[in-house]
Amino acid sequence: METKLPHIVVLGAGFGGLTFCQDFKGKAHITLIDRKNHHLFQPLLYQVATAALSAPDIAQPIRSILTDNDNVTVLMDEATGINLTEKSVSLKNGTLHYDFLILGLGGVTSYFGHPEWEQFAPGLKSLDDALTIRRRVLYAFEKAETEMNPQRRDELLTIVVVGGGPTGVELAGAFSELAKHVLVKDFQRIDPARARVILIEASTRVLSHLSPGLGDTARAQLETMGVEVKTSAKVKNIAHGFVELDSGEVIRAENVIWAAGVGASPLGRQLGVETDRAGRVKVAPDLSIPGHPSAFVIGDMANCVDKNGVNVPGVSPAAMQMARHVAEIIEDELLFPQHRQRKPFGYWDKGTMATIGRSAAVAKVQDFEFSGFLAWLAWLFIHLIFLVGFRNKVAVFLQWVYSYFTYKRGSRIITGQAGDAYLAEEETKNTPMVPPGHAH
Amino acid sequence: METKLPHIVVLGAGFGGLTFCQDFKGKAHITLIDRKNHHLFQPLLYQVATAALSAPDIAQPIRSILTDNDNVTVLMDEATGINLTEKSVSLKNGTLHYDFLILGLGGVTSYFGHPEWEQFAPGLKSLDDALTIRRRVLYAFEKAETEMNPQRRDELLTIVVVGGGPTGVELAGAFSELAKHVLVKDFQRIDPARARVILIEASTRVLSHLSPGLGDTARAQLETMGVEVKTSAKVKNIAHGFVELDSGEVIRAENVIWAAGVGASPLGRQLGVETDRAGRVKVAPDLSIPGHPSAFVIGDMANCVDKNGVNVPGVSPAAMQMARHVAEIIEDELLFPQHRQRKPFGYWDKGTMATIGRSAAVAKVQDFEFSGFLAWLAWLFIHLIFLVGFRNKVAVFLQWVYSYFTYKRGSRIITGQAGDAYLAEEETKNTPMVPPGHAH
Repeated sequence: METKLPHIVVLGAGFGGLTFCQDFKGKAHITLIDRKNHHLFQPLLYQVATAALSAPDIAQPIRSILTDNDNVTVLMDEATGINLTEKSVSLKNGTLHYDFLILGLGGVTSYFGHPEWEQFAPGLKSLDDALTIRRRVLYAFEKAETEMNPQRRDELLTIVVVGGGPTGVELAGAFSELAKHVLVKDFQRIDPARARVILIEASTRVLSHLSPGLGDTARAQLETMGVEVKTSAKVKNIAHGFVELDSGEVIRAENVIWAAGVGASPLGRQLGVETDRAGRVKVAPDLSIPGHPSAFVIGDMANCVDKNGVNVPGVSPAAMQMARHVAEIIEDELLFPQHRQRKPFGYWDKGTMATIGRSAAVAKVQDFEFSGFLAWLAWLFIHLIFLVGFRNKVAVFLQWVYSYFTYKRGSRIITGQAGDAYLAEEETKNTPMVPPGHAH
Repeated sequence: METKLPHIVVLGAGFGGLTFCQDFKGKAHITLIDRKNHHLFQPLLYQVATAALSAPDIAQPIRSILTDNDNVTVLMDEATGINLTEKSVSLKNGTLHYDFLILGLGGVTSYFGHPEWEQFAPGLKSLDDALTIRRRVLYAFEKAETEMNPQRRDELLTIVVVGGGPTGVELAGAFSELAKHVLVKDFQRIDPARARVILIEASTRVLSHLSPGLGDTARAQLETMGVEVKTSAKVKNIAHGFVELDSGEVIRAENVIWAAGVGASPLGRQLGVETDRAGRVKVAPDLSIPGHPSAFVIGDMANCVDKNGVNVPGVSPAAMQMARHVAEIIEDELLFPQHRQRKPFGYWDKGTMATIGRSAAVAKVQDFEFSGFLAWLAWLFIHLIFLVGFRNKVAVFLQWVYSYFTYKRGSRIITGQAGDAYLAEEETKNTPMVPPGHAH
């Protein structure tokens, strides 16, 4: 059974790694390694955090996606180190040698040198992150309902989102809808419509990767929905129950969500090659690691200037395009080993968009900018098309239709309380409480 | 705003407590208290544990269910003690006084005096239990794929279900389907079809609440699906990785699920009234606590012999019938306080059923017993009808149709690894591993 096929190791089953495995046509065996058993559709992760979708709706087992790709072995494991000279990858459960390596481990939440903020302000990169945020936010409303101290109650009903990029904008809009449209009917003592959602952005406007015009539109849409938008506001400190800004302003809030910083997977820094401030590997024009032509970096882990001088952004279409580029290079080289002539990568910007809420979104395709209902519909359909798995497409579509017409959220449940710091603290609290009119 | 309405406190938003809140027509204010924010449809919990359904599909926010019941206040809290003489309930966050009390806290998993088995053999009572089981079982298959030691690999691929009641039978059937039909296509080194699912029952047959004929049918259906059924087999010990039987037989298995014992919520034992061995409160014919006519116990917490001498079983229809009975008693008494004449509770057995797998189930309605495809269809529709929430009915129905035709499971994802004892152990392991044919 000993085959002498070349061995390609792919680290990470995100958009990049998965696309590579699906598109690679050459004669080689691929081993795909991921810490999780599922591919996650990150663009919809904020909808799990805001109780609109359930976790399995936006995740698909990697094995199941690649069930017909007989040349791919899937392992649930984690890379702990890479030796580019010996061409080997150390995993928690062993070591793999490779002929070609594809690094596509994506990003991690970065707290700009303040890792201590993480416990108070969770980021949003994994399903577990999303479920933590959902649990904490829903639980804060429950706590507010039994809270007698009005100041503490306001605190429980305040959500701060740090970072005015697409994730922050989408989260803030969705939290505002959750409070003002979904929860508002179901509480008796508190008024969820009075919940505050505050979006904090360090630069002068939200969605700074889009034009000032679209940024202004997004801001206006957010404010119409009741989100308080604070631009040119830098975070100085975060601890339990508050955010302090550079201006000295202190915002008391039970829930602070961190959507401000994305850094590359820490493995990039361990390679001993040049990385940028975010830890991304500075790749050669062909996406290989300079000096190591058998090792490629794709997706959010790569700092790439393409053949037209464009800084390739950390978005899923870029990761998928990079994966296809590398697949073609390796296919060619396996067929014509002597004729090594690699093309530089060129990024094709399909456009960017962000959704803000019901019937509200902004989009940019080439030089064409649009917003409102049309942009929102476009956003919905593009995300459905790219969502992996037929079952998930149908499930997400039906839930969106359901939520649109009923103003309800299908995943408004609190699970997994054990081990949550916020709840451990809660156990020790004991405020006297009686419902109005029933103190005997 | 001080109203002088009588105050009814309901503990537990299971089938009993929820039905009471929905059906009670009298003039009174109700406070419903539950530790969770959701009502759980327990009959389908095993489908979450076996990756067929996602957690939100079988749970509904309590507030959302009762959104139109303006006389009901919902609190997410936990009762820590009850004073029947002073008519008060202590909660984690305060104290409530009541005019009437409804205790419907349901059951807990009971290990028959061996609480130390719980960490090795999780029970199945809550969504968190189900997600723990799903995570551990799916992860065991992933670990088996990288395991080089054949004995350890067999252990990883063995699932033991303890207890041959409806839950145990349903779990064993669903695990066998998961391994033999769903996972079988997606692994390269292991053959999930070779996974062993072993069902252990202490008495002489499975489903002992049904006739011997139906029990035999269920056993035959399970064995056709590849489940090993061991009856008259008592568990002597459970520890990490094995189950020891009274016969001396030791079964090595990574996953052991406990479906053998259900005890009543521990609060019953703290009341200072008569309870049975399972901790259930022995109720008067009207379902009140003897000597305390304002306090009622319904559902799995009650040990009740009805007016016809029938021992009322711990099933959801019984809990709902008990809730309606108590609602009528209180309605009457509020209208005619002088005319206290309470009717005894009578249980109407609508029938019982258990599903075993695809097109396989057994059912008994009055004296009519049936099995096979018809029983399976009946099971599907009855569960859909009683599932709370329109969205959940549609979601579950569509997933069942999808799974039936594709042999896939929509919720095959591993989330929430942190804090899991099984995984902590795994971190320290380091077996050398290379894929076949790629050791360089």
